[in-house]
Amino acid sequence: MRISELDTPAVLVDLDRVERNLARFQAYCDRHGIENRPHVKTHKVVEFARRQVELGAVGICCQKLGEAEVMAAAGLPDILIPFNLVGAAKLGRARALAERVALRVSADDPLVVDGLAEAFASAPRPLPVLVECDTGARRCGVQTPEAARELALRIDRARGLRFAGLMTYPAKGAPERAATFLAEAKALIEARGLAVPSVSSGGTPDMWRAHEQPVITEYRVGTYIYNDLMEVACGAARLEDCALTVLTTVVSRPTADRAILDAGSKSLTSDLNGQTGHGRIVEYPEAVIYGLSEEHGHVDLRACTARPSIGEKVRVIPNHACPVSNLFDRILTVRGERVEGSFVVAARGRVD
Amino acid sequence: MRISELDTPAVLVDLDRVERNLARFQAYCDRHGIENRPHVKTHKVVEFARRQVELGAVGICCQKLGEAEVMAAAGLPDILIPFNLVGAAKLGRARALAERVALRVSADDPLVVDGLAEAFASAPRPLPVLVECDTGARRCGVQTPEAARELALRIDRARGLRFAGLMTYPAKGAPERAATFLAEAKALIEARGLAVPSVSSGGTPDMWRAHEQPVITEYRVGTYIYNDLMEVACGAARLEDCALTVLTTVVSRPTADRAILDAGSKSLTSDLNGQTGHGRIVEYPEAVIYGLSEEHGHVDLRACTARPSIGEKVRVIPNHACPVSNLFDRILTVRGERVEGSFVVAARGRVD
Repeated sequence: MRISELDTPAVLVDLDRVERNLARFQAYCDRHGIENRPHVKTHKVVEFARRQVELGAVGICCQKLGEAEVMAAAGLPDILIPFNLVGAAKLGRARALAERVALRVSADDPLVVDGLAEAFASAPRPLPVLVECDTGARRCGVQTPEAARELALRIDRARGLRFAGLMTYPAKGAPERAATFLAEAKALIEARGLAVPSVSSGGTPDMWRAHEQPVITEYRVGTYIYNDLMEVACGAARLEDCALTVLTTVVSRPTADRAILDAGSKSLTSDLNGQTGHGRIVEYPEAVIYGLSEEHGHVDLRACTARPSIGEKVRVIPNHACPVSNLFDRILTVRGERVEGSFVVAARGRVD
Repeated sequence: MRISELDTPAVLVDLDRVERNLARFQAYCDRHGIENRPHVKTHKVVEFARRQVELGAVGICCQKLGEAEVMAAAGLPDILIPFNLVGAAKLGRARALAERVALRVSADDPLVVDGLAEAFASAPRPLPVLVECDTGARRCGVQTPEAARELALRIDRARGLRFAGLMTYPAKGAPERAATFLAEAKALIEARGLAVPSVSSGGTPDMWRAHEQPVITEYRVGTYIYNDLMEVACGAARLEDCALTVLTTVVSRPTADRAILDAGSKSLTSDLNGQTGHGRIVEYPEAVIYGLSEEHGHVDLRACTARPSIGEKVRVIPNHACPVSNLFDRILTVRGERVEGSFVVAARGRVD
């Protein structure tokens, strides 16, 4: 089957581009002795997670326990959840999950560490816990290298836990600031006789600079498998590296200057991520998707010489690929214009 | 079970509020002799669609054929798809659907009408088609009352189709402008001896003004079942009418002024819809959700006197309820603090 025969909207993933994207960053990590731990949040597809590990990833990363459970059931053996797991329900699930896979988690507060310690006190093997550091992104994380040291010592003291290292999600464009914090925390912890086996950073935007910070031993990347306009804008990828597109039909041409697509915010999401439009139409790059309703994309054609007719199908590269694949139960796999098959987005909807 | 015992994030829908919201607008429609045709895009739940019809709705409205197929399978007998159906795949599905339910659709272009006419030429009964009018929202629709007349006549001439009236999605806050267009188009069509049985408008923001435009015979409302911050901001609902909330846990308190929730853009969506923050925390109304990552909500607590601890669960009223329920496979139904059960979001993921 050819792409032109598909109904719309649909998410297409070009497998040649996926392979190239995965191989390129894995080779970079291998060259620089960095452990690659891809984040499945972008694709949520077990086949892709397996492929990432097959190519050399040390394990995978899941932002939600529910995602990790799906990946574990699919045979993925090594999973990091870089997220504070809080509350009896989640701690019980984490304990069960750790019996099946090599699980590691992060924590940024004594309360979180104490919860994990209680849940894992009688576990057959200790749970590796990384200390999450806020190195400038102002999300989660301890605020100072000293606080990182104190939390590391607390983890080390806790029965059922093992201090596994440091983790950060750095501010975009400032990897050296993250590295400074991490190196300082590492030194403080080592000065107390505690080893820091792993220092994990992440983020697709700055992935090609991971080797500039020798303190980093592991890197977590998500979007690199698909790429999107945001990654192109920040120089991490080229347009021809964008593997995910939304196939959509021009369903209305109310005026000469305007087209309406059957893909709106429920297909493309409202994520702007620094872009002004809502995606790039591959066949009409001068067109501007200036607005979205839930099921309509509003396109300004004024800058276009050729203009699409009603019924014409076009492909849109989204601003942000991750939340797009999260809206679809299934993605269609393609190579060039040929449809190969489909993958279930198995971890989609595993919200907790 | 009580809400406090639930794991997070989760979508909670308060059934008492839902009942009140549904009954209030149905009573308004009954009082003014307007046919109520609720839009299921907001909830995508068959139980709620049935309840809307039970309370007096003339039928339902689906933005996607896939949604309509789910609702038809669940026994909903009368469905409007106010969307140009284009292409052989969709036309074939529409034809099959029309054998099972009273289906009606809209069209805004001769090409769309001709496609429908071809698909329904040999149908056992003609397909009712409304002419979509662009009355100021600048989405789909014919641009002038004269164009509406021409399209109505084309529908009337087509074997397999029946001209059923006019349809618009009006610009927010300008229902009188829409009414002027519709009244003019209606007069032009009637002047050609063609009856205009139905004039359908919609939109929750201006729903309480539907009776001010006597040309309107039918009104389509979606968000009114749940309401959200956008509807509160434009005066269509009060905070206590908001039936949908996202239950989320405070998973990190990195600083005294900041909290991080386990609900991000994959739970709350990036829809701003005129709001500055990303939702209102019911228990901490002074808190500002100033940013979202995919799985984290970033909260500024500076204006709060009381501040939440790690592990505390809070409820967030989203900016826009419709895309939120679209992210979850299941919603939990509650009354006050008590969890009653759950409904499957059956039409979620029916993207085409």
